[in-house]
Amino acid sequence: MRASSHARDRLGDMNHLSIDFNLAVDQHLKSAGLSKADYERLSPQLQQAHEVLTSKRKAGKMAFMDLPKQQTVLQETISVAKKLSGTFENLVILGIGGSSLGPKALFTALCHPFHNFLRPPQQKGMRLFFPDNSDPSTFAGLMGTLGLERTAFAAITKSGGTAETWAQLLWVVDRLGKDAARRQLVALTDPEKGSLRATARAEGWQALEIPPAVGGRFSVFSPVGLLPAAAAGIDIAELLNGAQSMVERCEKGNIFENPAYMLATTLYLFDTYKKRSTHVLMPYADALRETGDWFVQLWAESLGKKKGDGFVGPTPLRAVGATDQHSLLQLLMEGPEDKLTLFIAVDEPREDLKIPEGVFDLSDVSYLGGHGFHELLSAERQATATALAAQGRPSLCIRMPSLRPFAMGELLMLWQIATAYAGFLYEIEPFDQPGVEAGKRYTCCLLGRPGYESAQQDIQTYKATNKAWIF
Amino acid sequence: MRASSHARDRLGDMNHLSIDFNLAVDQHLKSAGLSKADYERLSPQLQQAHEVLTSKRKAGKMAFMDLPKQQTVLQETISVAKKLSGTFENLVILGIGGSSLGPKALFTALCHPFHNFLRPPQQKGMRLFFPDNSDPSTFAGLMGTLGLERTAFAAITKSGGTAETWAQLLWVVDRLGKDAARRQLVALTDPEKGSLRATARAEGWQALEIPPAVGGRFSVFSPVGLLPAAAAGIDIAELLNGAQSMVERCEKGNIFENPAYMLATTLYLFDTYKKRSTHVLMPYADALRETGDWFVQLWAESLGKKKGDGFVGPTPLRAVGATDQHSLLQLLMEGPEDKLTLFIAVDEPREDLKIPEGVFDLSDVSYLGGHGFHELLSAERQATATALAAQGRPSLCIRMPSLRPFAMGELLMLWQIATAYAGFLYEIEPFDQPGVEAGKRYTCCLLGRPGYESAQQDIQTYKATNKAWIF
Repeated sequence: MRASSHARDRLGDMNHLSIDFNLAVDQHLKSAGLSKADYERLSPQLQQAHEVLTSKRKAGKMAFMDLPKQQTVLQETISVAKKLSGTFENLVILGIGGSSLGPKALFTALCHPFHNFLRPPQQKGMRLFFPDNSDPSTFAGLMGTLGLERTAFAAITKSGGTAETWAQLLWVVDRLGKDAARRQLVALTDPEKGSLRATARAEGWQALEIPPAVGGRFSVFSPVGLLPAAAAGIDIAELLNGAQSMVERCEKGNIFENPAYMLATTLYLFDTYKKRSTHVLMPYADALRETGDWFVQLWAESLGKKKGDGFVGPTPLRAVGATDQHSLLQLLMEGPEDKLTLFIAVDEPREDLKIPEGVFDLSDVSYLGGHGFHELLSAERQATATALAAQGRPSLCIRMPSLRPFAMGELLMLWQIATAYAGFLYEIEPFDQPGVEAGKRYTCCLLGRPGYESAQQDIQTYKATNKAWIF
Repeated sequence: MRASSHARDRLGDMNHLSIDFNLAVDQHLKSAGLSKADYERLSPQLQQAHEVLTSKRKAGKMAFMDLPKQQTVLQETISVAKKLSGTFENLVILGIGGSSLGPKALFTALCHPFHNFLRPPQQKGMRLFFPDNSDPSTFAGLMGTLGLERTAFAAITKSGGTAETWAQLLWVVDRLGKDAARRQLVALTDPEKGSLRATARAEGWQALEIPPAVGGRFSVFSPVGLLPAAAAGIDIAELLNGAQSMVERCEKGNIFENPAYMLATTLYLFDTYKKRSTHVLMPYADALRETGDWFVQLWAESLGKKKGDGFVGPTPLRAVGATDQHSLLQLLMEGPEDKLTLFIAVDEPREDLKIPEGVFDLSDVSYLGGHGFHELLSAERQATATALAAQGRPSLCIRMPSLRPFAMGELLMLWQIATAYAGFLYEIEPFDQPGVEAGKRYTCCLLGRPGYESAQQDIQTYKATNKAWIF
């Protein structure tokens, strides 16, 4: 399964992810599509973005691209996962945002769709739960449902100080007691900094490292994604091979030889030249539903930025086909021309069923008989793409050969490189998130954290309500 | 719990849903907010929209507003639900779009967050499953996980001919055999028309009616929503009381006395006057996650329409607080000024937990100790609203007293009335979805359904791919 990616036949190689831009360009879409000239006009910026990326990478600031080759981390992660899964039935992820979305995407894509309902031997690996919120109903409900003695916890926070994660962690340690915590807890955090690292050391907790130069939303190939995946029984070595294969395919400067650059440039051009600022990711696979949420964070938090006196950033929207043909499609077809649809097709389903023939004789139903469910799903995707194109509405299609770990590695690495590259096209910093700090300050103030008193004034200002505007 | 809604004290009545528009108007938001004059300038259209709605209602075309009072339907639904839940453990909903989103929203909001994992007596009511896609992995996985003999099926399609639903239904009937199907199947469809009704009659299946004048996305208070909810143990009489209470509050023509009209007008004004066309629904409650999906369908499919030579319709975006503070918030705070955030606050959580004090002595964590999880969640919502407002970014907040059925009835009816009203402000037909027909035609053609051969030409046109655009 190891990739020999550079010399592949673009259409012929069925073992690798590919992207089809045909329904996004002018050959089919006329003036609604992009032309080769649109891309070429951008050459200077594209060249510059590649140079910035390359020098950043050399300087160690694109560390997420180096994660797939870290064999020591891989072995260490597998070893912790084995220890946990040999002892416990459940793994609860105490993490939020980038500490939850990556492992959740992997779990949903690569495990059985009802994994948590299965029993051994059908169920290979631990059951995973992601209470990624400070909602007490969820957390109390989960803690009341699982047997705590059969449950391990992975506390994940890069900074080491995330409020939602600590609220849960404090509750868990208090409930388990500190001795049991040493057996049932793993901490994933910065190797040196922060309260979680300090506590893990002081308490003697098991711990894994999130590399300092890897931000939360780029951490899926660090232990953040790998530990839960391995615990659930996913082949994380294959996953990393897929990711590495994509890294190698994306090392060329010419966008026409680089799928991540091509993807990023296309989305950037639609946003800035064509005013199609809403990017709808619509996989035709339930298993990729959570990958949609992962994409939303990656795209929104990386690219939604203040830039000089203005504000930039496309709006990501998550959909699932064929389900959302019965929800969003009307808006995509006949609403404002401000959207670009990004299909994901999976060539080989994990399992298929045949629609039986001759059960009933019904004029508007019988045509379904004899086809496979997967055939129906694929026809629906092709039909939707055709319908959009016939209305002059662009789309592109990411094709995955299967929902194997290798293909997921390719997909998630593709988007991460594309995001970094897009950041430099937008001329913003894709790796920070300064806009979320204000909210954190107000939360601290509201909860009486010393040193945050000055936030009180704004809170009071906007708290003052006029009853006339309450209904 | 019965509502006496008209004479309520707006701020004082804690038993009812309310909407706070303070952070959407100019008093706090200055020029970024709406002024009373903005609303007043729209008076003629508002008056007209109310008149259209009122006459449509008299003509029986707003039938969704009359659903809460249908006592016979309520009793019949409860009786079918009792029969099912007395015999079977699982209820699988064979339905997609409007036939799934409503019951899924109710189930997620009103049952235990891990309902399907519980066992009696903790678990009151049937387990519900929603394989609302033609994805074979999901359906095969589900069918392999549940014991078919312990499972009932509700086949739901208004038209009676939905492809995805029939694919599953044919598989189920073929697998169960026609005798067992009579015991294990319930059909929910039009009282007269369509293949599902005809088949239910011919086969002697149990059946309930979806009123002809009620469209899929407005059907949550018909048996479409009620049967699964009742089967799962939800008090659907209380749900309907809440819905009816909202109907009564929304009968006045003056928007300043009508929460649904006020909500619709505010969103319409932000879209058309302020270019804030993306409407982000962000409940601070995991239980309302699926209500977000229900809202997306309702808002997108009703309002995304061709209008003359142009195209209108806001873009709904679903989020969950506090989770998406770690995902979308950066874009909301510092991205383009094209969004309006609609918070939902729940005053009383179903369950709460306390963050323990004194577990560790950590300078950046200890402030959390002693607070409740719900207090943290509420502080985060208030902090986020404050942070947005301080950046001149508008929001509004829908407050629900609790996640009881009554409050859900209010919430879902509020949005349905608001949607109908907004349709008339946009001067489009909110009850149809003409844009999805083309895709259905292409699907039929691709699967060889007789009579659909003419769609072949478009399919061929857009299938022709240029290898140069595949990466």
